[in-house]
Amino acid sequence: MKKLGKYTYIFENAPVILSGAGSVGKTEGEGPLAYEFDFINENDGIGSATWEKAEASLVRQAVTLAIDKAGLHPSEIDVAFAGDLLNQCTASTFGFRELQIPLAGLFGACSTFALALFMAALFVDGGYASHALAEASSHFCSAEKQFRMPLEYGGQRSQTAQRTVTGAGACVIGSRGSGPRIVRGSVGRITDMDVSDPANMGAAMAPAAASTIGEYLLDTKTVPEDYDLILTGDLGSVGAALLRDVLKSDYDTDLGRVYDDCGLMIFDPKKQDVHAGGSGCGCSASVFSTRILRELTAGKLRRVLFAGTGALMSPLTSLQGESIPCICHAVELTGGERR
Amino acid sequence: MKKLGKYTYIFENAPVILSGAGSVGKTEGEGPLAYEFDFINENDGIGSATWEKAEASLVRQAVTLAIDKAGLHPSEIDVAFAGDLLNQCTASTFGFRELQIPLAGLFGACSTFALALFMAALFVDGGYASHALAEASSHFCSAEKQFRMPLEYGGQRSQTAQRTVTGAGACVIGSRGSGPRIVRGSVGRITDMDVSDPANMGAAMAPAAASTIGEYLLDTKTVPEDYDLILTGDLGSVGAALLRDVLKSDYDTDLGRVYDDCGLMIFDPKKQDVHAGGSGCGCSASVFSTRILRELTAGKLRRVLFAGTGALMSPLTSLQGESIPCICHAVELTGGERR
Repeated sequence: MKKLGKYTYIFENAPVILSGAGSVGKTEGEGPLAYEFDFINENDGIGSATWEKAEASLVRQAVTLAIDKAGLHPSEIDVAFAGDLLNQCTASTFGFRELQIPLAGLFGACSTFALALFMAALFVDGGYASHALAEASSHFCSAEKQFRMPLEYGGQRSQTAQRTVTGAGACVIGSRGSGPRIVRGSVGRITDMDVSDPANMGAAMAPAAASTIGEYLLDTKTVPEDYDLILTGDLGSVGAALLRDVLKSDYDTDLGRVYDDCGLMIFDPKKQDVHAGGSGCGCSASVFSTRILRELTAGKLRRVLFAGTGALMSPLTSLQGESIPCICHAVELTGGERR
Repeated sequence: MKKLGKYTYIFENAPVILSGAGSVGKTEGEGPLAYEFDFINENDGIGSATWEKAEASLVRQAVTLAIDKAGLHPSEIDVAFAGDLLNQCTASTFGFRELQIPLAGLFGACSTFALALFMAALFVDGGYASHALAEASSHFCSAEKQFRMPLEYGGQRSQTAQRTVTGAGACVIGSRGSGPRIVRGSVGRITDMDVSDPANMGAAMAPAAASTIGEYLLDTKTVPEDYDLILTGDLGSVGAALLRDVLKSDYDTDLGRVYDDCGLMIFDPKKQDVHAGGSGCGCSASVFSTRILRELTAGKLRRVLFAGTGALMSPLTSLQGESIPCICHAVELTGGERR
C-alpha cells in the first residue's frame, strides 16, 4: 500500500509539475499578484454573452496556455481533472468541449483544484498517464448570480463574506522533466461543525482544513516548521484565524509563520473592497498555478503543503435549514530541483 | 504506461468487486428488476422532509449496505468516489456526511457511476487503496424539480423523455477476495453533436457512447461478439437505437445481440409510464450494483463492457441556447471467477 498512517498517500515516483497558467479578471489583475498572472482579462465579460460563457472562456485560456507552456499538444494530455462551482459544473464542460482531452469531472467546491492536483499526480505516479492536467475555475459574476443575488440588486455583503475570484488555473503534471514535484497527498473527509451561515464560509471550512492538515502532520510525523509554507485555498481572514485556533486546540499545533492563504494573497483588503478575502475554485487554482509554482520552481519555496478547502452546500440546502458540510484535500510539494 | 491504444487503461491487478447494493424508490420496485434490489423504499419521500434529503437517504442506504455486505466497517474504506445530479452534488455530500470516509466528489452527470467504478478500480489496482467505494444516485422528484417542472405542475412529457430513476447504487472494490474483476477502463472525451433538446437526452448521449465504445473496441482489438454484454447506462429506447446506428456508420460495428441498456431494463414500458426508459445517475448505479453484479458473480456473464453516458448541460446552459455536450466513461469486467 502506497499509504502512510491513516490518510496520507505516497507518490513514490514524485510526479513533476511541468507547467502552470493562471487567467484572471479585472479586479484580480488590480491586486498584489497582478504581475504573476499569465493573462488578465480587461473586463469580466471576456467577450462572452453570459457570465457562464465567460467562465468557460477563462477555463480555455488557462488550459490551453498551460499545455502550450509544457510544450505539448492537447492530444498529448492523457487525462484532465477539472471542476467548478456552477450547477452541473458547466464551466469545465464548456471550457473543455473542443479540446478532445479525456475528462474526469470533479466536484469539491473550492477544494477542487487541490483534489485535481492530487488526482493528476496519482495517475502519473501510478503509471496510468504520461501527462495529466489539473484545472479549476470560478467567476465572481456567475457565482453571485447563482449563490447570492443578481449583481444588479446591489446587495450589501457581510464583513465575513469573501469575494469569489474571477479566474482559472491549470497545471500539467508529467512523469519526467524538471520542476516542482508532488510527493504526497491526502483525500479529505467531510467535516460539519454545524456552521450554517453561507456568508461565513471561512468559519465553516476551517475545521475541515484543521482535520486534514492535523492528520497529515500526524501521518507524516512532521511539524509546521518542516515546511516553508502551509497554504490553504480560500479560508480568508475569518477562516485563517479560526484554522490557527482549531489546530491549536485539537492537534496542539501552532502554524506559526509558515502559514498563508491564497484568499489573503490575491486581493489587497486595504485597497480592494473584498471583505474577508478571495474565494472560489479559481482562487487557489490561479494563485497556485502562478505565484506558488514560480516560487517552487525557483527554489524560493522548497517544501509546501497545499490544502484546499471546499464548502459543499448548495443555496437549496441552506434554505432547507442544513448546516454547511466541508472538505479539505491536500498535496505536498517539493521545489527547487534541477534536472 | 498502463495503457493500451489511445484511450484504454489496463488494470493489471484486476481489482475485485467485493460487494454491491442498490436501493430504489417505489416505481423502480414495481418494475422488472424488483426482486434484484436490496432495498425498495415504500414511498419516494423516504421519511425525509424534502426530496433532496430523500436522495441523500438513498445514498446512505446503498453505501452502508454495500460496506456491510463486504464485511467491512466504513473506517476500512480508504476512499470513496461519488456523485449525483443535484446542484453542487449535495445528495452525495449529505449522504456521506456522517460516514467519515475520505471522499473524492465526481461530476459526470449520468456517467458518474461508470467513472466512480473506474476511479475506485484504478486506486486499488495501483496499490493506493485496499478498499475503494463507488457510488451514484438520483431521485425522480429532486431531478424533476431541478431540471424540469415542479411535480405539482403536472406537465406533459415528450415521448423521447426518460424517467429519472429514484435510486442509488454502491460497490466496494478490493485488492483481494473473490468476485467479478475490473480489468480495463476508459475515460471519455466530450462529444457534442449539436443536439439541444433537453427532453431527448438519449439522442444527445448516443454519439458519446459510440465514441467511447468504438475507440475501446479499436484499442483492445475486440468486437462486440467477444463480450457477453455491452451495457450502457441510460440511453433509453431513442438513444440505444441511435447508438447502434452511429457505431455502424462511424466504426462499421454491429452491436448485434450483446447490447442492452440499464434504462431499458429497470422499467417495463408496457406497464409503466416511463416514455423512453429510465435515466439518472442512479439508474446504472442501481442496476449494475444488483442485477449485473449478481450475473457476473454467478458466471452467467463472463465478460461485460459497461459504458455510462452523461449529458453535461445545466438548465441554464439550455436556456442560453447551448447544445448538450456529453461524455461516456467505461469499464470492462470479467465474471465467474472462483476464489
